[in-house]
Amino acid sequence: MKPFCIEAPDTALLPAIREKINNLNKPKGSLGRLETLAEQVCLVQQTLTPLLCHPCHLLLGGDHGIEREGVSVSPREVTWQQMLNFTRGGGGVNMFCRQHGFKLRIVDVGVDYDFTGVEGILNRKVARGTRNFLYEPAMTQEEFDRTIDIGAALCDDCYDEGCNILCIGEMGIANTSPSSIWMSQFCHIPLDECIGAGAGLDTPGIRHKKEILAKALENYALNSQHSTLNILKHFGGFEMIAAIGAMLRAAERKMLVMVDGFIMSACALAAMQLEPHVRDFMIFGHCGDESGHRRMLDAMHAEPLLCLGLRLGEGTGALCAYPIIESAVRMVNEMNNFDNANITKYF
Amino acid sequence: MKPFCIEAPDTALLPAIREKINNLNKPKGSLGRLETLAEQVCLVQQTLTPLLCHPCHLLLGGDHGIEREGVSVSPREVTWQQMLNFTRGGGGVNMFCRQHGFKLRIVDVGVDYDFTGVEGILNRKVARGTRNFLYEPAMTQEEFDRTIDIGAALCDDCYDEGCNILCIGEMGIANTSPSSIWMSQFCHIPLDECIGAGAGLDTPGIRHKKEILAKALENYALNSQHSTLNILKHFGGFEMIAAIGAMLRAAERKMLVMVDGFIMSACALAAMQLEPHVRDFMIFGHCGDESGHRRMLDAMHAEPLLCLGLRLGEGTGALCAYPIIESAVRMVNEMNNFDNANITKYF
Repeated sequence: MKPFCIEAPDTALLPAIREKINNLNKPKGSLGRLETLAEQVCLVQQTLTPLLCHPCHLLLGGDHGIEREGVSVSPREVTWQQMLNFTRGGGGVNMFCRQHGFKLRIVDVGVDYDFTGVEGILNRKVARGTRNFLYEPAMTQEEFDRTIDIGAALCDDCYDEGCNILCIGEMGIANTSPSSIWMSQFCHIPLDECIGAGAGLDTPGIRHKKEILAKALENYALNSQHSTLNILKHFGGFEMIAAIGAMLRAAERKMLVMVDGFIMSACALAAMQLEPHVRDFMIFGHCGDESGHRRMLDAMHAEPLLCLGLRLGEGTGALCAYPIIESAVRMVNEMNNFDNANITKYF
Repeated sequence: MKPFCIEAPDTALLPAIREKINNLNKPKGSLGRLETLAEQVCLVQQTLTPLLCHPCHLLLGGDHGIEREGVSVSPREVTWQQMLNFTRGGGGVNMFCRQHGFKLRIVDVGVDYDFTGVEGILNRKVARGTRNFLYEPAMTQEEFDRTIDIGAALCDDCYDEGCNILCIGEMGIANTSPSSIWMSQFCHIPLDECIGAGAGLDTPGIRHKKEILAKALENYALNSQHSTLNILKHFGGFEMIAAIGAMLRAAERKMLVMVDGFIMSACALAAMQLEPHVRDFMIFGHCGDESGHRRMLDAMHAEPLLCLGLRLGEGTGALCAYPIIESAVRMVNEMNNFDNANITKYF
């Protein structure tokens, strides 16, 4: 993996940003989270007049070898079926992209299906699903590097069109499993506490998932040298590694990155292990129901904008939060201040 | 006050609504709060294909006699100054109305200022502020009745234009004070626990506010017959009573009502004392920072859509939540179901 060059936003502008926000005609701090969000957007864009331009959504699809172990309520064919469904506009991700004006790119990074001849799916397939990490690394070093580059290049395409805010979602049956393992490894939380129901496992299903993942981690510990990169390529999905590549490149290009639910939060966490300053560019959209998501967000000191109990994935939680980012930007640009509004400054 | 005729939505449609939502192509329940919200909207509109039409926002302004006792960090002149500012488009409420396509009506119900000649403010003035409820009822019975009618007529105007979702906000320096008293009286929570910082009081300021409001309640108890209507007219502001009238009429007309922060929640609570079924038409937008807001929402079994720490009023918290209601409606209308999406139904 080639290194990314990610610089923290220059904080020299912060006093000017705060002065502008504090002088808007409202009690100080009374727009709460919109104010801290506006501060972040201004810092990332290094401006007092921020803009959200050409928002793009990457919907990354991939299958997982671990699905063979019955760790998910839904079979792997649902991945390709949903990918096709997205091309017809009928998925959750489609509605919210339409609602908020996002350009949607549906990308096959590693789905176990031949989409030849299907319009509307970008072919970036690395392989037809990862290997089963119960027994072997999910991908090779070469596949990992290539997948990071794919994610970065997808981000570049958005950037080149004028995008400065990137949202990323996933479709990949069984991908809460690698996410739980990453969370456990990077947050130092016992694996059991990182595992939940995914798309709807019952109690015996969750017990089975815990057993399989514990065994997978045990086998890994016996046979592998422990490092961030090894954990990523041993357990990761192609859609997840591509998401990490896209996040890192977005930060390199000083774009905002909208982070979705449990799986995308695990990718954000992984990206931060590689490049801590990627965090500065991230806006966390939603805290979902998946057990452990809140703890993972806490570990990243992330306060998501919404808590609506969504657990669909696809980026839907992050997309639902987009209007709030827009509101924050409007606040900075459109609200009068105490001088031009002729209001008695009352604090 | 003439009675309102508010019927609970007919729940006969509920099984069909639930079947439609459960058959959308997503794991059951995986769109969380959007699903329960969609259920409510479908029930209120008695349809499986809901629509949000011509959303309107009523910004109601009024002054409060109790402001003379120094219970607020800001002086009463800020009420009229902000009302003028709203006509120029530079307030918080203006931005969010523009962002979400709301028609904004700025209404003087009882501001202590002569707006003659000012364009953009509807003149529905009952009086130049209420009387000081430390010593006497804030308004007479006749003023109360007239103000309820004003609110109802404002709702009618929106309805006649084709509006089926009404948002209400307020501008009225010192109006957290009557809100705290209503909360205490209607939720049976000690007054002290219902009083917070308002727009930014410090600790001695809050202590003073508590003393004044306790004394006001003591004087009231000595001299008045205890009833819901007496509590409303003894402490209420004109903008608050008009809001109650608008809420009740909206429910009568089977419109959705978006409820904002602490003050509008207190009005919602009051409206429910008069007509419990008004609750069925209400969508709670935001839980703010004002001490006690969460407890008041709990008392109404209300789960707000957002918790962003806003405490500006004007309806901003509710307006920020509007895209989520739109998302819920889109879900019902636009998302494929398992039959037409050709997805293996996996639960």
